[in-house]
Formats: sequence, C-alpha cells, structure tokens
Amino acid sequence: MKNWLPVFRYLLRWTLLVLPLSVAAGSAVALFLWSLDAVTDVRFAHPWLLYLLPLAGAGIFFLYRWGGKQADAGNNLIIDEIHEPGAGVPLRMAPLVLGTTLITHLFGGSAGREGTAVQIGGSFAEGFARWLRLDKEDRSVLLMVGIAAGFGAVFGTPVTGAVFALEVLTIGRIRHKALMPCFMGAVFADFTCSAWGIHHTHYHIASHQNLPFYTLLATSIGAGVCFGIASRLFSELSHGIKRIAAKVVPRPEWVPVAGGLVVIGMAALPGMTDYLGLGVHNPDPAAVTLVSAFHEGGAHTWSWLWKLLFTAVTLGTGFKGGEVTPLFFIGATLGHTLAVLTGMPVDLFAGLGFIAVFAGATNTPIACTLMGAELFGGEYLLYYAVACFTAYCFSGNTGIYLSQRVSLSKSGEMLPGKTLRDLRK
Amino acid sequence: MKNWLPVFRYLLRWTLLVLPLSVAAGSAVALFLWSLDAVTDVRFAHPWLLYLLPLAGAGIFFLYRWGGKQADAGNNLIIDEIHEPGAGVPLRMAPLVLGTTLITHLFGGSAGREGTAVQIGGSFAEGFARWLRLDKEDRSVLLMVGIAAGFGAVFGTPVTGAVFALEVLTIGRIRHKALMPCFMGAVFADFTCSAWGIHHTHYHIASHQNLPFYTLLATSIGAGVCFGIASRLFSELSHGIKRIAAKVVPRPEWVPVAGGLVVIGMAALPGMTDYLGLGVHNPDPAAVTLVSAFHEGGAHTWSWLWKLLFTAVTLGTGFKGGEVTPLFFIGATLGHTLAVLTGMPVDLFAGLGFIAVFAGATNTPIACTLMGAELFGGEYLLYYAVACFTAYCFSGNTGIYLSQRVSLSKSGEMLPGKTLRDLRK
Repeated sequence: MKNWLPVFRYLLRWTLLVLPLSVAAGSAVALFLWSLDAVTDVRFAHPWLLYLLPLAGAGIFFLYRWGGKQADAGNNLIIDEIHEPGAGVPLRMAPLVLGTTLITHLFGGSAGREGTAVQIGGSFAEGFARWLRLDKEDRSVLLMVGIAAGFGAVFGTPVTGAVFALEVLTIGRIRHKALMPCFMGAVFADFTCSAWGIHHTHYHIASHQNLPFYTLLATSIGAGVCFGIASRLFSELSHGIKRIAAKVVPRPEWVPVAGGLVVIGMAALPGMTDYLGLGVHNPDPAAVTLVSAFHEGGAHTWSWLWKLLFTAVTLGTGFKGGEVTPLFFIGATLGHTLAVLTGMPVDLFAGLGFIAVFAGATNTPIACTLMGAELFGGEYLLYYAVACFTAYCFSGNTGIYLSQRVSLSKSGEMLPGKTLRDLRK
Repeated sequence: MKNWLPVFRYLLRWTLLVLPLSVAAGSAVALFLWSLDAVTDVRFAHPWLLYLLPLAGAGIFFLYRWGGKQADAGNNLIIDEIHEPGAGVPLRMAPLVLGTTLITHLFGGSAGREGTAVQIGGSFAEGFARWLRLDKEDRSVLLMVGIAAGFGAVFGTPVTGAVFALEVLTIGRIRHKALMPCFMGAVFADFTCSAWGIHHTHYHIASHQNLPFYTLLATSIGAGVCFGIASRLFSELSHGIKRIAAKVVPRPEWVPVAGGLVVIGMAALPGMTDYLGLGVHNPDPAAVTLVSAFHEGGAHTWSWLWKLLFTAVTLGTGFKGGEVTPLFFIGATLGHTLAVLTGMPVDLFAGLGFIAVFAGATNTPIACTLMGAELFGGEYLLYYAVACFTAYCFSGNTGIYLSQRVSLSKSGEMLPGKTLRDLRK
C-alpha cells in the first residue's frame, strides 16, 4: 500500500490542478467554436465582408500592438515557456487571440482554430499557475496541460490532444512526464466543451473490401511522400511570406493590409471563395470543403494548392487562428487528388492526407496516427502510420512551430538543444 | 532537393538493412507460430504429457546451461545491449528459445510467445549487425528493429510492434530515433509471417449504443486501477518465485522440476487445465480461453488469478515463452469479471483488460493504446487510453523487464539512469 500512496497523491494533486483549468479552457473553447460558427454564417450571408479584410488585418495588427507584442508569438511562446520558463504567457493572450481569430474568419481570412484553442489553454494555464504560485516544473506541466486541453476540446479528440502535447515540444521525442495530467486535461476539456452543446464534425471512411494490398501500401507510401512535401511547402511558404513581407512592405501595419488585398485578389478568380475561412462547411453544396473532400467529386485537382496559398498568405501576413484545420483541408484535398489519379478510394486517401500533412507540418507522427484512429476508426491504422511516418520523414527539418526543439534530424542525426528556428539560420 | 537527399539515403540504407532481417525474423516467427500450434494440438490430444513437465523443465535447464548462461537473460539482455552495448546477443539465442518454448508448451507450461519472437528478432539483428560490422549506434537501432519485427509478426500488429520497441526501452520516454527502421521492420516481418500462411486470432468488440457515458468512464478508470494492480501482482510474483525458488530449492536444476510439479498439482484441481499452455484456443468449447473471455459466460470470477498463478510459477521457475499472451489472458478474464460485477459490456472490458494489464506490466501505455485500435478498432480509443494510462500509473515502479531504464517514477519523479532492477534493491 505504501507504494501506491505517492501515486494516489500525485494523481489527486494533478486532478485538482487540472480540473478547474480544463473546465475553464473547455468552456472558453466552446464559446470560441460557437462564435466561430456564428461569424462564419454571417460571412456566408454577407460575402461583401471579404472586402473589409485588409482593414480587419490592420485592426488585428493594432490590437496586438496595444495588447503587447509578446502575445503575438502565440503557440511558439507557449512552447518556449515550457522549455525555458521566462517572462510567462500573458493572460490577455486568450481574449486577444479569440477576438482576432473571429475577426479573421468574419472577413474571410483562410485560417484554422487550433492555435486559438491552444493559446486559450496556455494562457489560462499560466494564469492559474501564477495564482497558485506553482514552481517552474509544475508550471511547465500545466502549460502542457493547456495545450492538451485546447487541442482535445477544439477537435473533440482527447487522446490525440494529450499525445500531441507530449510530442510537439521536441521533434523526435515523447516524454511521459505530463502523460496523466495532459490526458486528464484533454478529457475534461473535451467533456466540458461537449457539455456546452458543441458538436464536432464526423468524417467517415467506408470499409473497402478486396483492396489490392501491395498496391494500397505502395500508394500510401507515395502519398506520404507527397503529404510530407506539401507540409514542407506550407511551412516554408508561410515563413517565407512573413520574411519577404517584412522586407518589401515599408510599414509593418501595411503587411496585413497587403495580405488582405492578395486574398481578395485570389478570391476574385472563379470558384476560389471555397478556400476562404475555415473550410469545414459551406452552404453551397457544390463547394469544396473539408467534408466534401471525403466524397467522389468533392475536390478539384489543385484545391490543395489553392488552400495552401490562401492560408499561407492569410497567416503569413499576421491574421490569426492557427494552421491545423487548413492543413487538414490541404491534406484531404491532396489525398483526394492522389486517389483520383491512382484509382484508390477517395475517402481513405482524404483521411490519410488529413492526418499526414498535419503530422509533417507539426512533426508529431505518433499523435497523428492516433488521431486517425480517433476520427476515422481503427481499420486502416497501418496506413495511417505509413502516411504519417512517411510525411514526417519528408517534411524536412522544418515545421510550423519554429520554437520546437529538435532532438533528431530527419536523416537520423542527433541535434540536441537546437530549435527549428536555429536550423533555419 | 539537396535537403531530401540525406533523408532518401537514410531511408534507403535502412530499408536495405531492415528488409533481409525482417524477412528472416518474420519467417522464423512463422515457423515458430506454426510449430506452437502443432505442439499445442499434440498436448490437447495427449493430456498425459503434462506429467512430463518437470522432466521437460530439467531439460530446458540443461539446454541453457549447455547453450550459454547469457542467452537465459532473454529480453532483458536485448534491452541491456541496446542501452549499453556489451558482449552482444548470442545468435544461438534464437534456436534455444524457440526449442525451449515449444518444449514448455508441449508439456503444458503456462507461457506466452512474444518473448520467443522478440529474442529471435534480437538475435538475428545482432548476427546481422556483426556480419556487416555495423557501429554501436546502428547495432542498437537494429536490435530495436529486431524487437519491433518479432513483436509485429507474432501478434500481427505492426504499428504496435514499432511503437512498443521505441517505448519499452525506457519507462516514461519514446525516442523516434529508430521510428522508421522499427516501423519498416515490423511491417516487413508481419507481411512475411502472413505470406507464410499464418493467421492471427481476431477479437471483436461490438458497437454498444447508449452506454451510460459517465458510468462507463468511471468504471474504466476503476478497472484500470485493478488492471494495474494485477500487472504488479504478476511482476512481483514472477520475480518473487524466482528469488524464493533459488533460496529454497537446493540445486538450480531442481527449480524447474519443482515448478513443473506445482503446475501439475494446480492442474489437478477441477477445471484448471484451461490455464495450461498458451490459452488462446481450446478444443473443449466450454473451456475458458482468451477468445471466450470476450463472450458472456466465457470466464469464471477467478480465472484471471489462476492464469496469473500458473504463469508466474511456469515462467518464474525457468520455463520459456514470454509473458505477454498470458498477460492478455489475465487482463481479458479480469476485465470479464469486472464487467459482470458492474453490468458493463463483457467484450469491451475484456478488450480493455487485454491491453491494460500488458501496458502496466511492460510500462508501455501509448503502444498498448495503439494496440487496442489495431486489434479491436478505434471506436473505444478513449477507453483504451483511460485503461492503459491508469494501469500504467498503478503498476508501480516495477515490470516484467527488469532491465528497463526508468526516466520517470509513477509519482512523477525523475530517476535518470536507473533500471527497474536497481529500484528493487
């Protein structure tokens, strides 16, 4: 019995720490998802709102200038604070990112939602840790819980949320240090979010009998390479646009204005409004969406590239929301295209792309394999792993979170202590 | 392009290294599984073979004395060699463990099969690495591939095999260093094994509608605690029997003889022959088996404890085969009992016990969660994680592989560099 007491104490303590944080974060994520749906509906009802996107961009810029430059680092700041506790994650990050994400989506920017959820979780965690005067070690675990809670709640995938928080910090390593706290956080936050009446989109991959086994495997590997290259293209393009915009545009507040104008210009091309906003649903049944990509004829050959461009411009010029839902969209539509080219089932390859482009861009192959099982069922687990692991290998030593630590390069070298940002210098 | 060349080279090199190893290991595992079925059938046809178990134990003892004491360390030797390359894993470990496992099963010892498969994989890997004069680093990766290949092939679960090999080395950490080599090894070995016509047992968990959500969750947590305690009981009892037998029995060759006599004595009690051997199938349709535990009425209240005792005695006194299939049996029957007590679905709780007792005894919660998805489908992934993570917490700082390194205690303390063996001193 004496051996179990420390475990009981450990679990009880963390349950008490995690529960209020996750309920708060889950509720805030529910509010966020509800408002996101609402603003998206408003945009669909009033398509002219897109023309105000440049103005909205300038608004976001000034909100962050007023709210403190530090919060602008977003997910990277949270990752940095977990590795090397510093000035902390400001509490106002939560309302700032929530508000600016809603602005981005209301005016048609192509962005996601997980960045917002993770930053809500992270800033609540920091506020809570400070209030309880937790030490560095506990504070860093609680920040990981914040990531897990935000991620688990926003996509309704608690197991993935927990493993993602453990895997995303350092490329090539999972540490179980925060396993139980993160898992509890993700589960509680997901429950809270559901209890507020939030429903998550369901994706369905049918059970395909008699698929040619070796062809399917070889195609999954090939598709995994393409997914990895697409992740890399997205990461490089977002970082590149940010860098180039800072050089070319004379004043920083004009960067989002320019970004908004580019988005308006691209959206003027025929059929391009499908790539605005979140992209999960669309009142137009003929539109390309994340959901339609799982059905025959639900995406065009280059849908993935257009979504990639729209999102890289939107996020690279300072709009807010996160990259993950657009990465799902890019992956699912690229998977759709590859399935059409190779005669493979569209729903399966849309699913593989969904998780694998995300795995490549965030360097979290194990979390994304689990996500496949959590979202689409376990039947194709082998192919989820094939696609995610291959995409991880081929996404290069880069990713969307430049503060990620690198313990291992993609060609197997050990690189202890570096960040992705260091590797880019 | 220049950035992808090292990745291509890395993957090509490891494909060439892994492919022949996995084909060889997968073929040897196929031979092993085929022979295991054959000797199990012989035993069912000739139940009197059980009376020769003590003699068989002495035979195994002398085979290992003749074959080299080192090979007797089995899985622990492989784990040690990966962490700190030393004298190496002898090639004769493969035939020795294969032969002695078949002897154990022919005469009715209660044992598993994954130890045998992992040791075949490990000794082939070492032989191969020596033949190619690989350096320490590559040799250690290849040994991990051997574990992944053996595990993936023996259970038909390549994704789990790969993650298990990465997670089992150190409690509380997964390193992706060998991610792709291990995954390729597990997939190739599994394919090879299947190509030889080996079929794996299928387990089925039905889709239960309208389960009371919070009750199910709370029951899964409670069951997870029980599964963790059962893992711990099993580990402690196996190690304890080994220690006590060495003290009480005057000569070491008498230890397996005594073990065999105890097994015969226990099997003489009514209904106890179900717990002999592997326990997956039984020609008697009324017998308790791993498969029957998934059906109503397919296990008795104390089946799990009996299997635990039979296996701890068998393996603790020097018989061979491995612990994992008995752990599946213990978990599935304990899950069955808990489901009956709480009114929960029997198949679901048998499945939870199947993976969670294993997770607790080997300290690999993430691999075992994946195993749930790979064997039973993804619908109950949340509960797989709940059961496995909880069992991992409550199995204590112990496990069946005493060479496992501990980077983290179950109550959250960092313990770098220690092995489980050190913690027991």
